[in-house]
Amino acid sequence: MRTQVGIVGAGPAGLLLSLMLEHRGIASVIIESRDRAAIEATIRAGILEQTTVDLMAELGVADRLRREGVVHHGTILRFGGQNHRIDFEGLTGRVATLYPQHEVLKDLIAARLAQGGEILFGAKVTEVADVAAERPVLRFTDAEGAARELHCDMVVGADGSYGACRPAIPTDKRKDYLRIYPFGWFGILCEAPPSSEELVYARHERGFALISSRTPEVQRMYFQCDPNDSVENWSEDQIWAELQARIAGEDGFRLKEGRIFQKNIVPMRSFVCEPMQYGRLFLAGDAAHAVPPTGAKGLNLAASDVWHLDRALGAFFAGEGMARLEAYTATALRRVWRAQHFSWWMTSMLHRFEGASEFDERRQLAELELVTTSRAAATALAETYVGMPYA
Amino acid sequence: MRTQVGIVGAGPAGLLLSLMLEHRGIASVIIESRDRAAIEATIRAGILEQTTVDLMAELGVADRLRREGVVHHGTILRFGGQNHRIDFEGLTGRVATLYPQHEVLKDLIAARLAQGGEILFGAKVTEVADVAAERPVLRFTDAEGAARELHCDMVVGADGSYGACRPAIPTDKRKDYLRIYPFGWFGILCEAPPSSEELVYARHERGFALISSRTPEVQRMYFQCDPNDSVENWSEDQIWAELQARIAGEDGFRLKEGRIFQKNIVPMRSFVCEPMQYGRLFLAGDAAHAVPPTGAKGLNLAASDVWHLDRALGAFFAGEGMARLEAYTATALRRVWRAQHFSWWMTSMLHRFEGASEFDERRQLAELELVTTSRAAATALAETYVGMPYA
Repeated sequence: MRTQVGIVGAGPAGLLLSLMLEHRGIASVIIESRDRAAIEATIRAGILEQTTVDLMAELGVADRLRREGVVHHGTILRFGGQNHRIDFEGLTGRVATLYPQHEVLKDLIAARLAQGGEILFGAKVTEVADVAAERPVLRFTDAEGAARELHCDMVVGADGSYGACRPAIPTDKRKDYLRIYPFGWFGILCEAPPSSEELVYARHERGFALISSRTPEVQRMYFQCDPNDSVENWSEDQIWAELQARIAGEDGFRLKEGRIFQKNIVPMRSFVCEPMQYGRLFLAGDAAHAVPPTGAKGLNLAASDVWHLDRALGAFFAGEGMARLEAYTATALRRVWRAQHFSWWMTSMLHRFEGASEFDERRQLAELELVTTSRAAATALAETYVGMPYA
Repeated sequence: MRTQVGIVGAGPAGLLLSLMLEHRGIASVIIESRDRAAIEATIRAGILEQTTVDLMAELGVADRLRREGVVHHGTILRFGGQNHRIDFEGLTGRVATLYPQHEVLKDLIAARLAQGGEILFGAKVTEVADVAAERPVLRFTDAEGAARELHCDMVVGADGSYGACRPAIPTDKRKDYLRIYPFGWFGILCEAPPSSEELVYARHERGFALISSRTPEVQRMYFQCDPNDSVENWSEDQIWAELQARIAGEDGFRLKEGRIFQKNIVPMRSFVCEPMQYGRLFLAGDAAHAVPPTGAKGLNLAASDVWHLDRALGAFFAGEGMARLEAYTATALRRVWRAQHFSWWMTSMLHRFEGASEFDERRQLAELELVTTSRAAATALAETYVGMPYA
């Protein structure tokens, strides 16, 4: 089997890229280890930058997003027991859109299949071979268990943090930057109406909490926890008591409670692999970097990576040679590191740090005060949140 | 001896306050432990916020400042071996002014004495008594060694970090917030022409450096050092080599060298005492808080404190009671904590931290990149640097 661009992973990065390449008339095949039903059923967060929404609209895959996505004109930073709003639209003229990642994936998969695009579900890559040579090969086991090969001109590793592609870059040819946070997020999904129209990022002496929404009937909430804690240690009553305590304030704000039907603990880390390429292998999305969820940047960064990659691949297949592809890492990393800084900053501004001095805590509050009273500081937050243009 | 407001300390806070009170017809006496010549001869840094310059102009003490002060329309953040300019004037319509603190003090002392104001130089406060009662007393030894008393309605402690006033607030009535940084600044004064028209804040793998100017003939430069180092450990050649290394870059920027005639090591700490008052004692300036010099906020914060204090004392002596004085801490602290955050932020963005991971270093560079490419982020820096209006 052969194609021009072999893509590993049918996540946002891989699917968006295959759609963009199709517009250029470049052939691609996606190899994805999970099956379609599993991908579409895994409930994931999804705050889309305006920039990501615009890209999806250009690709003609934003119809349902426009119908069902919830536009967030701003967000709430809650501290000192009060809400402080960041007005995205007033500050930047742009907005963020709540549209869960699994809904994005459903739309992208449907669009790609409708194009006649090939997505090999349930196919596990066993070897990413010859990427340093002119004819790379992806060896994989297909859904029926048969050993197969995909020969291609270029390989894109969009297979997430634990995929096969990053390890195909020799360790002496790459550098991994890693920061592990000493806390996690205890997340729940519950059957309840929304407690707030916009996301609430709450800073509290007991720790951070995030109040977000999936649908009018399903809510997603998180609270900062010990990363080694276990969901079994928390009864439903204890979870609600903790969440209510973290958003309590003089304004009487209360969460609307409901049956909790999913609990999980999310670890928090920041990660970047440099370079994001090796020979004819190019990493995109979580395969190259991970951010803590505080800045809602994961999916959006995947879109940014492949936006740059599409242009570079376009230049290559138009006969312009490797120059733009060789610049891919440098081009993509500008946004990656800005998003890394943003995610770190939102995390450090809102979380409780064990061992923080009282000075540190007061300084943290002063920073929140600055961000919610200085138009310039609020704009700096808002413009990164809604996403700067790619170029 | 008696007066309405007894002021301890003839620094910027005490002198500005006495001038402001005179405008209201409120009597004050300043007790200052050093003699006038010593104060005026101690070379100190001085970047004045636009807000501070405006206040001095209102008080009629800005003539020489306007003649001799050097207007800084912007400042340079140097990293990656290149200069990146923050355009204060373009971003905020305001500027900062380089006018050393000892020059400010000469002007304020001369103006206050010209008003017939009383400044008791060489007088050491031995007791700050009865501040919880209606008639506080300042006991002191005057320049001739005689024990004396100053009876007053209100006491203002503007006597710096190590003065007698802060300890007059019982420890169970106050809370001290302290952060000590694991580095200091090695500072030199040298005879050389300026190397840059504007201040250069340089971030380098070897550590921070600051290139500033005193006069066309005298330059002030600093480099981050071990706070326990000693100036004797560094020869003139070693100092220049270190400074040149920290500002080296592809653009070929070099410092103009000259005879070094003063060397010192500045410790770096952040400190706030809360509340800034107790009974009829009110702290202002360094007596209440200290900032690392990175944000150039020390003198400016002293001016802000006494601007609020002047209004509150004015209300009190106009017969409006204690309400505004009682609100002094809350009113002054908003700017104090914003400045604390700013100074911490500038420090953390520009210094090398022992034990920082490579992720942290890249994130730091990404933050500098953001601040020098996002107009909103640059404006947030600039507006705090040039000073927000007091009210």
